[in-house]
Amino acid sequence: MEEEHSIRMDPCSSGKDKPQADQLEFGRKFTDHMFLMDYTGEKGWHAPRIVPYEPLTVDPSAMVFHYGQSVFEGMKAYLTPDGDAQLFRPERNFQRMNHSNNRLCIPSIDETFALKAVKQLIALEKDWIPKAEGTSLYIRPFIISTEPYLGVAPSRHYKFIIILSPVGAYYKEGINPIKIAVENEYVRTVTGGTGEAKTGGNYAASLKAQEVAEEGIAQVLWLDGVERKYIEEVGSMNVFFKINGTVITPALNGSILEGVTRNSVIQLLKQWHVPIEERKISMEEVYQAHKNGSLEEAFGAGTAAVISPIGELVQAGDHLEINDGKTGAIAKRLYDTLTGIQYGKIQDPFGWVEKIEDVKQTNLKASG
Amino acid sequence: MEEEHSIRMDPCSSGKDKPQADQLEFGRKFTDHMFLMDYTGEKGWHAPRIVPYEPLTVDPSAMVFHYGQSVFEGMKAYLTPDGDAQLFRPERNFQRMNHSNNRLCIPSIDETFALKAVKQLIALEKDWIPKAEGTSLYIRPFIISTEPYLGVAPSRHYKFIIILSPVGAYYKEGINPIKIAVENEYVRTVTGGTGEAKTGGNYAASLKAQEVAEEGIAQVLWLDGVERKYIEEVGSMNVFFKINGTVITPALNGSILEGVTRNSVIQLLKQWHVPIEERKISMEEVYQAHKNGSLEEAFGAGTAAVISPIGELVQAGDHLEINDGKTGAIAKRLYDTLTGIQYGKIQDPFGWVEKIEDVKQTNLKASG
Repeated sequence: MEEEHSIRMDPCSSGKDKPQADQLEFGRKFTDHMFLMDYTGEKGWHAPRIVPYEPLTVDPSAMVFHYGQSVFEGMKAYLTPDGDAQLFRPERNFQRMNHSNNRLCIPSIDETFALKAVKQLIALEKDWIPKAEGTSLYIRPFIISTEPYLGVAPSRHYKFIIILSPVGAYYKEGINPIKIAVENEYVRTVTGGTGEAKTGGNYAASLKAQEVAEEGIAQVLWLDGVERKYIEEVGSMNVFFKINGTVITPALNGSILEGVTRNSVIQLLKQWHVPIEERKISMEEVYQAHKNGSLEEAFGAGTAAVISPIGELVQAGDHLEINDGKTGAIAKRLYDTLTGIQYGKIQDPFGWVEKIEDVKQTNLKASG
Repeated sequence: MEEEHSIRMDPCSSGKDKPQADQLEFGRKFTDHMFLMDYTGEKGWHAPRIVPYEPLTVDPSAMVFHYGQSVFEGMKAYLTPDGDAQLFRPERNFQRMNHSNNRLCIPSIDETFALKAVKQLIALEKDWIPKAEGTSLYIRPFIISTEPYLGVAPSRHYKFIIILSPVGAYYKEGINPIKIAVENEYVRTVTGGTGEAKTGGNYAASLKAQEVAEEGIAQVLWLDGVERKYIEEVGSMNVFFKINGTVITPALNGSILEGVTRNSVIQLLKQWHVPIEERKISMEEVYQAHKNGSLEEAFGAGTAAVISPIGELVQAGDHLEINDGKTGAIAKRLYDTLTGIQYGKIQDPFGWVEKIEDVKQTNLKASG
């Protein structure tokens, strides 16, 4: 891509009002600017630019509206106590985006350049990174297929876009156990499908189970689409169970998304010498472990919530309380360590965080 | 919907050039106008209008770009020898759209009103219906989720849009057998998934198999996602096999799309007293039937191609020729009868066609 080292800047003069720290909601407010880049078969990815955040102009026949050819990522920028802005393992997000691109027949992106674009956009929007405890700037890179054509075939035109949204703490009152239900009717995806890609269709397919779930169910627990007995994910997070001292998470099998937080949890547990197994785990095994008292903890792991303890599991009318409905010790330690590293409050022995240069916050009177 | 009987008309003054009959390509050119209607939680579906065909203005955070919540339909308007325009079983398309809406958590539409909107739009665009043999005006109704929000939840805003595209004969030289390959790696969808809904994610998931298929493969044959042995669909068509005098098509199982053409084929075969079975059919059964000489015909059925004979089936390196690679008698009869009814050239004993009033073509000098 000839222009890759030159991102055209078209900043707007006046900014929008920034939300107050206590009014931050996930994914509703966006910053003043966005990054865009176009793809055509002839030019490849071209015309990278940072422009004012504004509506896209898209033909009604654009393929994304009809055949769902799209991918996305989710990551965050965190402000450290020193006023630095930093990212958490961002290279993994763009690696995964290319993995998703491959499954969806979307041309791959230059991962190094995409990361550069994120940093340049955040440098421009640095005043939008909220400062209150647990808040961050959510980063949403995504690719949509824009060729105006109704044939079922890979699009020949795409847009790669990055938008930013200041977000609050996922849990208003800190980390709190949620109630989840095992989903026995609907399936999110299946081996050979798109489960390990971060693409819209997986999320569209997941909405119905949540809609029909009983009151108070925060997330559904997805079982595999073939035998309907092995555990895959919870909501849009990876899931972990601690049984008799060992933490178990479903092995990557082609239908499970490989979470950045999942990978980080596994590495932390290994460092702590907590036994961790990536393998098939059935709902029956969890059920039996609960029955014989060896199910000690369960939690979800993902970028949005970091660690989400599971206090209750509903399976066909049975209510299984886990760890007396309280946050377990391992979940708490993982949450504290991950957020500590992300916000630069504790040392990062893994080289996970990546500072954004030229974003030292000096004007601490800014938003949030 | 209070305004449902009043579609605001905003016609443009000058039309685009209409493509010549021999330049008609599927889904690349669109007519002068489109139909739009909006949905919000407060107002329901509202503001139906026919406006000039033009790009949509959509927020970058609109949910359709991220979580794929969308549905669509495909149907055609045909010109009869008398100059009438008519539709083929259009009520079934809007019934199916509501079925898709339900699975995707999209608010249902008023099917009667949607059909009225199609007719009113076509009445305005009547000069766009091409006249040459085998051509038609393709109708694409679709719904996209437009709420500017990155939370994984059903959107609270939608747009229902209808666009029109003059299309040529699917096969330039008439009905011709295609070569298909059994897909053993990728899966389109699975029971409990979204297979019986017409939603973007299913089509996005299907692109990869076609991309990796060998040269000359027109479509892939999808097997079920659980046992990987039962036949589901071919490309984006339903599929039929004639074995020893009986026509067999996979039974609807939750992961197969219920095609309007599929249903029409079944009704025609029943009327002709050709044995027809809707049941599970394995690839092994087809393979054995080919081996013992009882596999007489195979064909796909869908709105775009109507009937698509299968002349060769590739399974793990084996090439199975069907009916000497020629179009079978049943496929030919179905094609002639269906297109005869659609174009008003033969009598319609089923009440399948629906004339569009006020669209009598008088100016036969118009396009195509």
